[in-house]
Amino acid sequence: MYSTMQDGELSIAQLLRYGSQVHGTSEVATWTGQGCRRRSYAEVGRRAAQLAHALRGLGVTSDQRVATFMWNNNEHLEAYLAIPAMGAVLHTLNIRLSAEQLTFIADHAEDHVIIVDSTLAPLLSKYLPQMSTVRHVIVNGGEAGDIEVPEGIEAHSYERLLADQPTEYSWPAVDERAAAAMCYTSGTTGDPKGVVYSHRSIWLHSMQVCMSDSMALSQADSTLAIVPQFHAMSWGLPYAAFMVGASLIMPDRFLQPDAIAEILAAERPTFAGAVPTIWQGLLLHLESNPQDISHLREVVVGGSAAPPSLMHAFEENYGVPVLHAWGMTETSPLGSVARSPAGTTGEQAWAYRYTQGRFPASVRARLVGDSGAELPWDGRSVGELEVTGPWIAAKYYGVDDDEKFHDGWLRTGDVGHITPDGYLTLTDRAKDVIKSGGEWISSVELENHVMAHESVAEAAVIGVPDEKWDERPLVAVSFKDQQHATPEQLREFLSGKVARWQLPENWAVIDEVPKTSVGKADKKRLRTAFAAGELDVSRTE
Amino acid sequence: MYSTMQDGELSIAQLLRYGSQVHGTSEVATWTGQGCRRRSYAEVGRRAAQLAHALRGLGVTSDQRVATFMWNNNEHLEAYLAIPAMGAVLHTLNIRLSAEQLTFIADHAEDHVIIVDSTLAPLLSKYLPQMSTVRHVIVNGGEAGDIEVPEGIEAHSYERLLADQPTEYSWPAVDERAAAAMCYTSGTTGDPKGVVYSHRSIWLHSMQVCMSDSMALSQADSTLAIVPQFHAMSWGLPYAAFMVGASLIMPDRFLQPDAIAEILAAERPTFAGAVPTIWQGLLLHLESNPQDISHLREVVVGGSAAPPSLMHAFEENYGVPVLHAWGMTETSPLGSVARSPAGTTGEQAWAYRYTQGRFPASVRARLVGDSGAELPWDGRSVGELEVTGPWIAAKYYGVDDDEKFHDGWLRTGDVGHITPDGYLTLTDRAKDVIKSGGEWISSVELENHVMAHESVAEAAVIGVPDEKWDERPLVAVSFKDQQHATPEQLREFLSGKVARWQLPENWAVIDEVPKTSVGKADKKRLRTAFAAGELDVSRTE
Repeated sequence: MYSTMQDGELSIAQLLRYGSQVHGTSEVATWTGQGCRRRSYAEVGRRAAQLAHALRGLGVTSDQRVATFMWNNNEHLEAYLAIPAMGAVLHTLNIRLSAEQLTFIADHAEDHVIIVDSTLAPLLSKYLPQMSTVRHVIVNGGEAGDIEVPEGIEAHSYERLLADQPTEYSWPAVDERAAAAMCYTSGTTGDPKGVVYSHRSIWLHSMQVCMSDSMALSQADSTLAIVPQFHAMSWGLPYAAFMVGASLIMPDRFLQPDAIAEILAAERPTFAGAVPTIWQGLLLHLESNPQDISHLREVVVGGSAAPPSLMHAFEENYGVPVLHAWGMTETSPLGSVARSPAGTTGEQAWAYRYTQGRFPASVRARLVGDSGAELPWDGRSVGELEVTGPWIAAKYYGVDDDEKFHDGWLRTGDVGHITPDGYLTLTDRAKDVIKSGGEWISSVELENHVMAHESVAEAAVIGVPDEKWDERPLVAVSFKDQQHATPEQLREFLSGKVARWQLPENWAVIDEVPKTSVGKADKKRLRTAFAAGELDVSRTE
Repeated sequence: MYSTMQDGELSIAQLLRYGSQVHGTSEVATWTGQGCRRRSYAEVGRRAAQLAHALRGLGVTSDQRVATFMWNNNEHLEAYLAIPAMGAVLHTLNIRLSAEQLTFIADHAEDHVIIVDSTLAPLLSKYLPQMSTVRHVIVNGGEAGDIEVPEGIEAHSYERLLADQPTEYSWPAVDERAAAAMCYTSGTTGDPKGVVYSHRSIWLHSMQVCMSDSMALSQADSTLAIVPQFHAMSWGLPYAAFMVGASLIMPDRFLQPDAIAEILAAERPTFAGAVPTIWQGLLLHLESNPQDISHLREVVVGGSAAPPSLMHAFEENYGVPVLHAWGMTETSPLGSVARSPAGTTGEQAWAYRYTQGRFPASVRARLVGDSGAELPWDGRSVGELEVTGPWIAAKYYGVDDDEKFHDGWLRTGDVGHITPDGYLTLTDRAKDVIKSGGEWISSVELENHVMAHESVAEAAVIGVPDEKWDERPLVAVSFKDQQHATPEQLREFLSGKVARWQLPENWAVIDEVPKTSVGKADKKRLRTAFAAGELDVSRTE
């Protein structure tokens, strides 16, 4: 017996139509270095139609890929909406990848057009000669002449291309499972892998972002989307904002702490999302440049584990609650969100909020042990997290990866435990776990404790070979300006916080923790540096 | 190009699995007249498994229909979850319908089993002899002997049936578009029509209910679901609550103002949903029996238009915001919700909140004029509201109704206008349904019954304002030559043909029913005559 209900239209075209009509007065504002340039969602709707006409004029048909090489800004939002709505596929290129990775990705996705910010044109122009499928480059915020293009590629100005195009477009009907957008993830090994989001997965994920127990995005919000649009779709914030009419504030290329502080002061957003590094930087800046940021009803932090010290500093010094969340490119990315259960307060509530949080109903999770057996949710048993759900990848684009996907589950590569009431604590990346004498040591836990020390700016912990124990932790630590602590002092600081046998004895002072293209600690580089004898390691006892 | 995303499992089985595990300590509480009896969601999960085993034991296979004839209570929640999760179809019977309507509905849906509250057993037993497909009746809160059943129907006790059943069930995989639940709506003309909700539509609707700009249901809520579970699925509150772990408070049969006040005092819910009549009754009660109800963060009112006076009284006298919403059985029912736009205050905000509100992104709406042309959203042009979306009916069960559905749009039968920013105001009903205490009375049905009386020539029924019930029917009747019947006689004639509460108390004898140019009863003229005091109305009791 089938239902009598409609399928409805879970599509980016409906999102665009809806947001630009019902929430036509909401707006997207892009920071220019001094104030914002703004467009209403009604204008975004008209310009998205113009962009679609322009792209069709450049030969974009059916599900061709149109890439972006852009910061977070007004035009990137227009691309987010117009490209999938016209039935083509938005491909967000991570500007921070290497030439090799970027040319591989553009070729693999068969990008036909790239829209590029004029400020990034010099960077892109270096890669263009190696990109074999690109035929058009559209310069946002500049002229066609602002980018050097090789033979066979035509350059255009974004604004000139849009000018005089009709402001309405007859958006085609699309299958909800059709590709809408894609994003490559640079895994630990081998070539980057493409995750292809569907209209359906984006729609459902956007609803989740606006649910009260997730990010609770609403029409009343103005949302500072710091997390790049080329990084897991800016955590879905642009689409979610259009779904409910929340206004968007885009930082463009201004991601330094002083710029973020300026944007906060000028625009007074109610919500913001960024990785811990950004928030750490802002906190440091605010220490010497105090400013009221209590207009933020909440900030969400994800991408890597939020150090408790960061969460306390925001809440206790500035009155801004920090919402800890977990996800990855393969999970759209909203995987879990750490709100404490109703009725908990004080230390008990904090203990819940330090975790990676609870899964929403759409995300099914399980823990799998070394033997492949499913582990209980007892708050102790540690295994690899596997997830499944309507915004979780089933595979990578054009590549088989049986290591990562099996029986309909995604192997996250994250290791941790889950409480009986569904709170996930990640103790490590599967590859970063330190195996000492048959026991596991969580590098994340050590990092959190070290970073709670007042002198420490950043810390990253890796496992290094040890004759007796197989592996032992090495702490790479950087200090705040003018501050320092000895390894002995740090070890003393840790004692009592972790088991005695987990206390690290290898320490290296570094200038800063190397970062990956998406801003996470690059432990691979640290391990390479250690192996090459490039770290100055001191041992405590 | 297809996406690489999973479909995920949008199913009641996943809802049940999730809510009973991740939110196992949340609870459903049912009012007993003195305090509540409670079950944790973990227990609900185990009992739902037991119920599924029990139903399978009674021969329920595949998509057979299992009906409920129940108040809102713990076991009704178990039925909500177990029946669709096992792949069968939950059919909520509206206990307030007439014998004729109920037997028609049970036969039309081919109900195999009915679960009945012991307090409703005497009522149901009167209808059972006419229900031709029912084979089993399960008495909740009583023994098998508590209901009189005709030959061919077996009676059971709910608790005895569940006892000793396994507390786990291997829930089958279902197509997300498969039938999960059905609810009949007594439309304006003819027989009641069935709306069949899918697993998908219920899932998406539940997400919407929990979105910040809708009802914002969250894990921190305890939700008093006053709107009956047999009335548009209690507005989706039970499913939404299980999706996020909000606790549920069920009033069972205790719907009188003093009982509701007692439940509020004892359980201090944070959220509640009911039709205006219930809230009006509560306000009257509170006037003479003051009580703090500020534990309610918000109450939602729908089913018929909320009088502004009601909204002001709640907010100004008790500090409880009233959220006005519009929907219907065919829309699952969440259609629109009246939150004022960010930045509005005072009278301006109130003006928005009086409306039927804004549509969410999943519900597409249009206004259609008499000519069939689409009308602009200018806040003035009045037309019939049509909607489409993933929780909107595409048709009725087993009946073609081209009047109601066309081109993928549902004709709502409601008439109104929409502002440029998407706020709907309903001004009238296209048809002449009478809304009494949140339930619909079909004027045509009453007319048909009255006109079946031997003395009656013609009859036309209109709704007239009523302080307590919003509207009550007025029967304008003309008699055959030389014949007559008193209002009391006519009312007596109707009794048994329609539900008791539908029996009209307002009567006017007229010479003939005024007609439109195409020969239909001109109810507009009748209403005008009534309003002008030109009808000689007598009241029966």
